[in-house]
This record gives sequence, C-alpha cells and structure tokens, in this order.
Amino acid sequence: VIVARVRRTLRERALFVRGERVLVACSGGPDSAALLHVLHRLAPELDLALSAASVNHGLRPDADRDVGAARALSERLGVPFAALAVTVRGEGASLQAKAREARYEALADEARRVGASAIAVGHTMDDQAETVLGRLLRGSGVAGLAGIEPKRADGVVRPLIDCRRADVHAYAARHELPVVADPSNRDSSYERVRLRHEVVPILLREDARAVEHLARLADDARGLREFARSAAGELLAEAAVDGGLDARVLREAPAAVRAEALSRWLHESTGTRAGRAHLDAIERALASRGECLLPGGWLVRLSGRVLTIRHEPDVPTRSRRRRGSE
Amino acid sequence: VIVARVRRTLRERALFVRGERVLVACSGGPDSAALLHVLHRLAPELDLALSAASVNHGLRPDADRDVGAARALSERLGVPFAALAVTVRGEGASLQAKAREARYEALADEARRVGASAIAVGHTMDDQAETVLGRLLRGSGVAGLAGIEPKRADGVVRPLIDCRRADVHAYAARHELPVVADPSNRDSSYERVRLRHEVVPILLREDARAVEHLARLADDARGLREFARSAAGELLAEAAVDGGLDARVLREAPAAVRAEALSRWLHESTGTRAGRAHLDAIERALASRGECLLPGGWLVRLSGRVLTIRHEPDVPTRSRRRRGSE
Repeated sequence: VIVARVRRTLRERALFVRGERVLVACSGGPDSAALLHVLHRLAPELDLALSAASVNHGLRPDADRDVGAARALSERLGVPFAALAVTVRGEGASLQAKAREARYEALADEARRVGASAIAVGHTMDDQAETVLGRLLRGSGVAGLAGIEPKRADGVVRPLIDCRRADVHAYAARHELPVVADPSNRDSSYERVRLRHEVVPILLREDARAVEHLARLADDARGLREFARSAAGELLAEAAVDGGLDARVLREAPAAVRAEALSRWLHESTGTRAGRAHLDAIERALASRGECLLPGGWLVRLSGRVLTIRHEPDVPTRSRRRRGSE
Repeated sequence: VIVARVRRTLRERALFVRGERVLVACSGGPDSAALLHVLHRLAPELDLALSAASVNHGLRPDADRDVGAARALSERLGVPFAALAVTVRGEGASLQAKAREARYEALADEARRVGASAIAVGHTMDDQAETVLGRLLRGSGVAGLAGIEPKRADGVVRPLIDCRRADVHAYAARHELPVVADPSNRDSSYERVRLRHEVVPILLREDARAVEHLARLADDARGLREFARSAAGELLAEAAVDGGLDARVLREAPAAVRAEALSRWLHESTGTRAGRAHLDAIERALASRGECLLPGGWLVRLSGRVLTIRHEPDVPTRSRRRRGSE
C-alpha cells in the first residue's frame, strides 16, 4: 500500500523527472529506510538512479550506529552510499537550526558530487500534520499552514508526505530493514515531540482522520498562498510609483492580497521579514495618513497619496512614536 | 477592558451604523448578559437603540429560569424585552440544528416587529476558536476555517467575537448581572463541549495564546476566501461557453480558484453543495477527458474542450462508472 501511495505522490506532485539521479537522505531511522527501499523498488519503472547518504553531526555518541544502519541497507540494495560528517556548534533551538542547515548543505554538496538533481527526505504525513498544528498554535496565519513543502525549489522532495508514519514503520518492519529506533524523536525539538506524543493523540480521539485533515489543509493553504502571492506581485506592479506605492491602489485591493504585497515590499526594501504586528501598523498608517517605525530604524509613512519607506536609524523610537501620534 | 475591546470591534468590523436599532439575543447566560450590558453602555456614544429578546424552545424544564434572568437584566437596564416561544421537534444533532434555525427565525421576526436592522448575539473568541478547531479536525479546507461570521449578510452580528470568554464571564460577575449557569454548555453538542473542556485546555498548555491564534486564523481565512470567491466569479465568467465551461481556461487558472469556481458552478447547476471528493473527481475528469457521476444523478463530463453537466437520474451509478472507465 505504501508503494502504490508513493507512486501516486510522485506522479500527482511531479516530484521527479524520468532519468534523474536522486540522492536519498538516510538517518538510519525507519522513515528514511522505508523511503530508500520504496524508491529502490520504483526506480526501474520511473527510470531513476539512486544514491544514498547519511549525515553525522558529531552531536551524539550513537551517531555511528545510525550511519551503520543506513550503510547496511544501502549495501543490501546495492545503492552507492556516502557517510557525510559535519561539525556544528551551539545550544538548544539554535543548535538544532544550525544542524538542520548544515545537514542540507552537506546533502546538497553530495548531490552535486554524484550528479543528483533531487534530494529525497523521509518526512511523512504525520510530520506535516505536526508542523501545521505547531503553526496553528503559534499563530501563523493561513500562509504558515502551508507547512512542509513536498517539493522545494532547491530540489529537496518528500515522497512520503502522503503516507502515515505508522504505515511507514510497519513497512520497514515487514521488510526487516536494518534501522535504529526512530531518530526523529531525538532530533526533534522538545515542543515537537510533545505535540507528537501528547497533543496529536488527543486530536485523533476527536477525529480518527485528524492527521489527514491537517496535512490536506497544508495543500489547500499552499494553493491559496501561491494564488495570493501571484496576485500580490501584480498589485505591487500596479501600485508602484516614484518613491513608493500608490496608497489608493493598495486600499482598493482585497485585504489578503494587500497584506501579502506589503509583506513582500517590506522584505525587498529592508531585507527582513515583517511580523503580523508590523503589517497591522502599516495598515493603520495606510488607513489614516500615519507613520510607523519598524525594527532596524525603517520608517513607513503615508506622504500624500504615496506610501514610502526609508531608513532612519538615528531617530530614537520614542520620539518617532510621539511624532506619529501628532 | 471588555467595553474598550467591544468598541474597537464595532468600529473595525463595522458591525453597526449610527442611529440603528439593535435586537440583543439573550440566553440568560453570562455571555449574552455581558453583551447587553456593554451595548447598553455604548449605546449613547454610538447612537444605538436597544431591544432584547430571549427564545424558549420548550426543550428544557429550566427554560423559564433562563428567560427570567434575561428579563430581569433588561428591566434593570430599561431595555424593552420580549420572550419568544418556538416549538421544535426532533432528536440529537438534527434537533439542535432545528432549534438553532427556529431561534434565528424567531429573532428575525422580532427584529422586524421592533424595527431592528441588526441582531446581536453573544459568541466570543473562544466560540470562534472552538469552531475553527472543530473544522480543522473534521477537515474543512481553508474556506471552512473562516469559522463564525462576525457580521452576517442577514444582519446577525457578534460584538464579543474579539473577547475571551473568561473576560466576558468576569465582566458579568463584576457587574453582578443576573445570569443562569452558562447555557452554552447545555445547548452545545457533546462534541463541542468536549473540545471546549478537554482539547482546548491542552492546546493552551502548548501556547497560552492558542485561542487568539485560532480566532485570528478565522479572519485570515475569511479574507482569503473572499478573495478566492471574487476570483472564482471572474473565472466562471471568463470560462463560460455555450453548454458548459471552457476546459482550457479552467486548467490555466490557479488550483485554489478553480476549486472554488467548480464548487460554485456545481451549486448553481444542481442546487446542492459538492464535497471535496466530488471536486477531486471533477478535477480528474478535467485533466483526462473523463466523466464522473455525482449524487442525485448529475453527470459531469469533458466533451471536447467543454466541461458539461447534465441530469441523468435514470442511469444507474454502476453502469456509469463502467462507462467512465472505458
């Protein structure tokens, strides 16, 4: 059932092209072991060439065991395998972020080395549901609900994104794949592990298909986000005037598109991402000829009919605020 | 704090117009009692005239007590009050739906009688968060996340939609309003009460602002839905050809807009709402020149470049299916 499901995911989400070489990222855990095994079965019909790699961050004493399991499976399947080592320093959430970044960098290097144009990683539908749930609770807005991308622009793809984790684990057990105990419980943040083991089971008690529904929501949100983004691009082009954006054109746009357009405009102007509170402040400036000061000393202001942004790092926030409320 | 918050909600969401008469629906519980009290305080500055009404479904022996509490508060505030009686028959979920429908009908009649152009009801931010959560778990897609409408086209408005339930209850207690124990726990479905008392507290343990985030998501989703709807209307106009819709125009549209447009087209053609599974089936028909039979004997088919729908109630589903897979 997993094989058929992955075949359908690959086709419907257009994850691979025929004749491509795919680098499969193997953690030693059951998710990525099943991924490598399934792709190995599908490779002939899809005309794919496979390589495998595992990344050792040097953060855990049992990393050698993880790499060993991944190597054993690759050898059993006759897939070329590389053990990549990276060095990461830091603590807590920052360490996890750095480890993730270093892992994807090492995989990208290895992909270039072996001539792979795609990197397959083992995230499942459960990972997607947990991501969506975490974003929901933290308050991401609809755009954040898009969750994990099944196919990233940089070549990272997720063939198991439509498979339940339990089914994937059962597949790994049925085929007696050499695996270590699920490393994703060790590699994930404390928050994520708690969502997985404490919150999701309660949601599943409310609706047995809650994981499918959360994951499907991600696809829905991604579709709407793409649409809002393309409309936002058109809005920015239409509103562009010398020195800023035409306020009247912005005001007449649908709120969802305006928010996306303002967010992109700020990012392009300042190089940083604006939070929702800043977007709300700009909306207020736009509605009532005000101004607002963003972090880093960026001043957004409605001057006549034009919304402008300029860098005024030397003016202290407090005096700006006072001026803004004149 | 509640008064200021409601004032802001009324302004930002444009719930009332000056000089309007508002009928406040009072259940006897603390939410609607606080609503009536707050609106009574805001009435002079907003130039609103108030009436109050409570609806007795005749379903509970203690309904007289609920009505009595609502009447006592109205008399204390000098607001004209009417006790409305409706008769509802049925069982379980169907009974609840009928009671809700009968309640809103009785309120609409009373609003006409007293010359009120708006009906204010006491739903809070917590009701909104519970609605969004329920839709998430049942799998509604982004459109369903819009949740409870703060302002319905038929004049029903929700001034407490940006207030937490606990703050509203504290307000009712502080002003010693005559209330019965929260009737919303009795009037809600078992599922809703379980979400409220078992699931939401666990989410709040993960993020103390989870209720705000879920409620804010509803606003976000509503904005995107409005945008998708208006784009879907344009798409339907553009795709309209003699006998159906131009398949090429549909295929080139963003998926989110196409889904919304197909949903509306089906509703206008058949009078019923299509579920997600039907929309998926039509997407497949559109992609590969197939056909699909919808409940009620509606056949959607790609004929050349045109997507058509027609009523063929006499053809059994099974033979249709076979024909479809030829």
